[in-house]
Amino acid sequence: MNPTPDTLHGLNLDLFNKDLLLTWEHTDDEIKGILLVAELLKKLHRDGVSIRSFDTGLAISIFRDNSTRTRFSFASAVNALGLGLSELDEVKSQIAHGETVRETANMISFLAEVIGIRDDMYIGAGNTYMRDVGAAVQEGFEKGVLHRRPSVINLQCDIDHPTQTLADLAHLKAAFGSLDALRGKKIAMTWAYSPSYGKPLSVPQGIIGLMTRMGMDVALASPAGYDLIPDVVERAKKQAAAAGGIFTVSTSMDEAFAGADIVYPKSWAPFHVMEKRTALLKQGDRPGLTELEKQCLAENAKHKDWECTEARMKTTNGGKALYMHCLPADISGVSCAQGEVAASVFERYRIQTYKEAGFKPFVIAALVFLTRMQHPVAKLEQIMTRSTERA
Amino acid sequence: MNPTPDTLHGLNLDLFNKDLLLTWEHTDDEIKGILLVAELLKKLHRDGVSIRSFDTGLAISIFRDNSTRTRFSFASAVNALGLGLSELDEVKSQIAHGETVRETANMISFLAEVIGIRDDMYIGAGNTYMRDVGAAVQEGFEKGVLHRRPSVINLQCDIDHPTQTLADLAHLKAAFGSLDALRGKKIAMTWAYSPSYGKPLSVPQGIIGLMTRMGMDVALASPAGYDLIPDVVERAKKQAAAAGGIFTVSTSMDEAFAGADIVYPKSWAPFHVMEKRTALLKQGDRPGLTELEKQCLAENAKHKDWECTEARMKTTNGGKALYMHCLPADISGVSCAQGEVAASVFERYRIQTYKEAGFKPFVIAALVFLTRMQHPVAKLEQIMTRSTERA
Amino acid sequence: MNPTPDTLHGLNLDLFNKDLLLTWEHTDDEIKGILLVAELLKKLHRDGVSIRSFDTGLAISIFRDNSTRTRFSFASAVNALGLGLSELDEVKSQIAHGETVRETANMISFLAEVIGIRDDMYIGAGNTYMRDVGAAVQEGFEKGVLHRRPSVINLQCDIDHPTQTLADLAHLKAAFGSLDALRGKKIAMTWAYSPSYGKPLSVPQGIIGLMTRMGMDVALASPAGYDLIPDVVERAKKQAAAAGGIFTVSTSMDEAFAGADIVYPKSWAPFHVMEKRTALLKQGDRPGLTELEKQCLAENAKHKDWECTEARMKTTNGGKALYMHCLPADISGVSCAQGEVAASVFERYRIQTYKEAGFKPFVIAALVFLTRMQHPVAKLEQIMTRSTERA
Repeated sequence: MNPTPDTLHGLNLDLFNKDLLLTWEHTDDEIKGILLVAELLKKLHRDGVSIRSFDTGLAISIFRDNSTRTRFSFASAVNALGLGLSELDEVKSQIAHGETVRETANMISFLAEVIGIRDDMYIGAGNTYMRDVGAAVQEGFEKGVLHRRPSVINLQCDIDHPTQTLADLAHLKAAFGSLDALRGKKIAMTWAYSPSYGKPLSVPQGIIGLMTRMGMDVALASPAGYDLIPDVVERAKKQAAAAGGIFTVSTSMDEAFAGADIVYPKSWAPFHVMEKRTALLKQGDRPGLTELEKQCLAENAKHKDWECTEARMKTTNGGKALYMHCLPADISGVSCAQGEVAASVFERYRIQTYKEAGFKPFVIAALVFLTRMQHPVAKLEQIMTRSTERA
Repeated sequence: MNPTPDTLHGLNLDLFNKDLLLTWEHTDDEIKGILLVAELLKKLHRDGVSIRSFDTGLAISIFRDNSTRTRFSFASAVNALGLGLSELDEVKSQIAHGETVRETANMISFLAEVIGIRDDMYIGAGNTYMRDVGAAVQEGFEKGVLHRRPSVINLQCDIDHPTQTLADLAHLKAAFGSLDALRGKKIAMTWAYSPSYGKPLSVPQGIIGLMTRMGMDVALASPAGYDLIPDVVERAKKQAAAAGGIFTVSTSMDEAFAGADIVYPKSWAPFHVMEKRTALLKQGDRPGLTELEKQCLAENAKHKDWECTEARMKTTNGGKALYMHCLPADISGVSCAQGEVAASVFERYRIQTYKEAGFKPFVIAALVFLTRMQHPVAKLEQIMTRSTERA
Repeated sequence: MNPTPDTLHGLNLDLFNKDLLLTWEHTDDEIKGILLVAELLKKLHRDGVSIRSFDTGLAISIFRDNSTRTRFSFASAVNALGLGLSELDEVKSQIAHGETVRETANMISFLAEVIGIRDDMYIGAGNTYMRDVGAAVQEGFEKGVLHRRPSVINLQCDIDHPTQTLADLAHLKAAFGSLDALRGKKIAMTWAYSPSYGKPLSVPQGIIGLMTRMGMDVALASPAGYDLIPDVVERAKKQAAAAGGIFTVSTSMDEAFAGADIVYPKSWAPFHVMEKRTALLKQGDRPGLTELEKQCLAENAKHKDWECTEARMKTTNGGKALYMHCLPADISGVSCAQGEVAASVFERYRIQTYKEAGFKPFVIAALVFLTRMQHPVAKLEQIMTRSTERA
């Protein structure tokens, strides 16, 4: 059942010139539409058909934290659509001179179509920064500074990681056959032990914020104290209720895994630790940060049993739950002495996690496409009709 | 009155395969032509028409100092014309191995169309370096090393900042209706206080070196001792005389502002300080640099009254002079405690300074276009006739 | 005698979807084909004809050591073919987190056509790393993770520097008229003194590994102890015998230069020193590295007479041997007090060394073209028939 532009006809999509900052700010139709376009672009790429949609134009990325896969996914996606990529390296820029976000956002955007931002280190700051950029280019567009209003795409913030979770959803759709087939399926989004600390909350928050809308049985589990941002948890509860699904929060990895169809074991730092860390980072308090890290690692070390082991996998539905991870995973005996997942479990699902990641460039391409094209369905039809070979 | 390729027909343009290093090395026809092409490319971009002029080809940038807006302007311009961008990062290269400029310039240029260079830190060195690169690729072309002779474009040097001042001139032309309308208008190019030191001389020098050719009344003002390069000041005098304009040099911000139609208050370091700084930088004399900075900041601090205040703005023509800045400005109470401009003045003109900056990518595109296209008018006509949608 | 696609017809080329890691893993037909395609692409570029072969697509480069000319050659080549370039900066990536090569290689390759890698610092590691990347993308392709299997191109490793030596061979072919004309010509690949140490072995190894196949008289010379990797020397011997050429190893620069048609004097570090250095680097043993450097520089300093002087040049065939260098050369009195080559010798051949380097972008383009195009001859014919102007 290959996707076609036809499948988009029934959907009410209002993404043109919009930002994509949190999945829950977009309708179910839009989520469905993003996946359909991503699938279609992926199929065209597989078939060697060019999906170039721009003759020229600039995509800008701002990475305020290290990244490999999101960086390359973004680079791949914008290239495939025909855009050039310029990365704003804040170290090489004059931004330290006291320039405002409002000003910089306009200065880089004169010929820009899209701005992808990763900013996940500061609780309360990353998503806000993206909104500031969006507001700035909106003002610039309205006041005639910019010919076009570039879209801002969240490449991971303190709250959500939409390009990851939409890729995850596309992977689940492919694995289970359809979005409808996910209804009632149990997904265990659990904390897992990692020898590092300070991992962002964006993935678990993004997963419960997206999967609860699919009518799934979403089981969030972590050791006591490893809380997510309360608002997001609250939203997940409401969404699950509205979608006829289930959302549970527990402190038992075993409970979450029991009978699960999908498991997503992944480390994160407690919300209140990230808040403290943000405060210390802002104050530049190095000894404070070192002390916090020490405390956290000690706390983490109490929960080394939170590992995705073969024994736990056996307790899932038929012992065959789909293991997911945003990568890189902390694999026991491979990337660390003890980590999030047993080596044999990871190895069994390794290729599937690669495929999971393989949706991301096409999800990003879909987001760029849908936020930039006024008539996306017509454009897709044009791309398929012309059917230009890419090479 | 939209620009068309027709408006270029009467102009004698000899820019093909040339460099753009100082505005005063180019004729009035060429300055007019650059602005017309920039305006035309800007209009086409606004209308969504592709200005792609190359199927493939490389643009190279060399930034020896930090930059945001010039970096992105260059990246945007070359992308819009269809060129790929490669930045020469001298840290990652082997240049430290003792390789000559002559050699490097050829090594990077085998498939290059244009080389944009920013080198503004060393008095007597930046523009010279650009000429060395130009001479090297000229030799390489003549000796058959290079198939084409790439153009060198000055993205700011120790003497001039042509892409900035041409963008400034395009902004003035738009604000006043035509270049002719600038005749007799008074522009105050004045020093202003900044809590930092060592700001380049290129903007004030470039402004007096360009605006005096427009028959304007150019009033240069700074505290005593904040001299510019004497040759440039001398040239401005001669040009003003030749163009039937006025060029005055004073030590009074008030005199310069009085009755001005345009004000451009901006900090810079005195020429003799930049010379000393250059010598110390070359010697790697850290304590000497620290001492020089201390002295200069102390000297600067005596001139905190050199601020573009509301009171001073009231003394301009009708109290409504156009405020200009190359950005980022040191805004009192915003980016620093006390700086070049009062917050209320800046805020009133903020959007206009963004628009001023918005000309820069199109000025750069025009420079690339005119230095690379043997028949620029015909090419522009072709671009307009084909009228390819960019997206 | 201009190259045409016709000249490729008789050749058996099996490069599609393959890697290019060592020249001696490829047949004589393939070596000839690479040169022919490089020459053809160079001619097309000279004539202003676009050689774009991709509508979109990503080329990835991984530079684990500094580079100017190879970096720009790769950037130029992939741009000319229509690919976008993304550089994997391992510092900015998450690779330090303990991620495996296998994983990273797939994560960056979802839309990649080609991966160029420079990794020449660690004996026994660089070429191995490239093979690991190749195996990883092969697995990814076979398991359905990747739609296409990107080619890995060696941009210099611990063993070979194929893009350099193929460019060198193209330069020799141009200088002597044909590959056949090289038969019996004497090339002196000699060590030369440099005030720096730790220079890679890849060029001398690559030269003896390639030129011995051309039936040349290859004279390798170095001070005693400056050995290359024994396997490569062994291979050169066998290849020379098979091709009806000569391969000699001596400790006399004079012997090597005597009657030579071509000289390639270049510094390198002894194999056993590079092995020690690799071990110390892996252990992070800074004092050990400093001590090793000190010893090596002292040893090097005993061989300052290994310089390509005018006197030695006079002993070559007619006193007119072609001087070659991969650049940058250590030029006595120019880039160092005493180095590999006398200033007057270098200056006489300077432009020719630039032309030698000028083949590299087209050799890389040929490698990308031949490893990516299933029907390269037909594609070349198409490119020549359409004859699109590049600008």
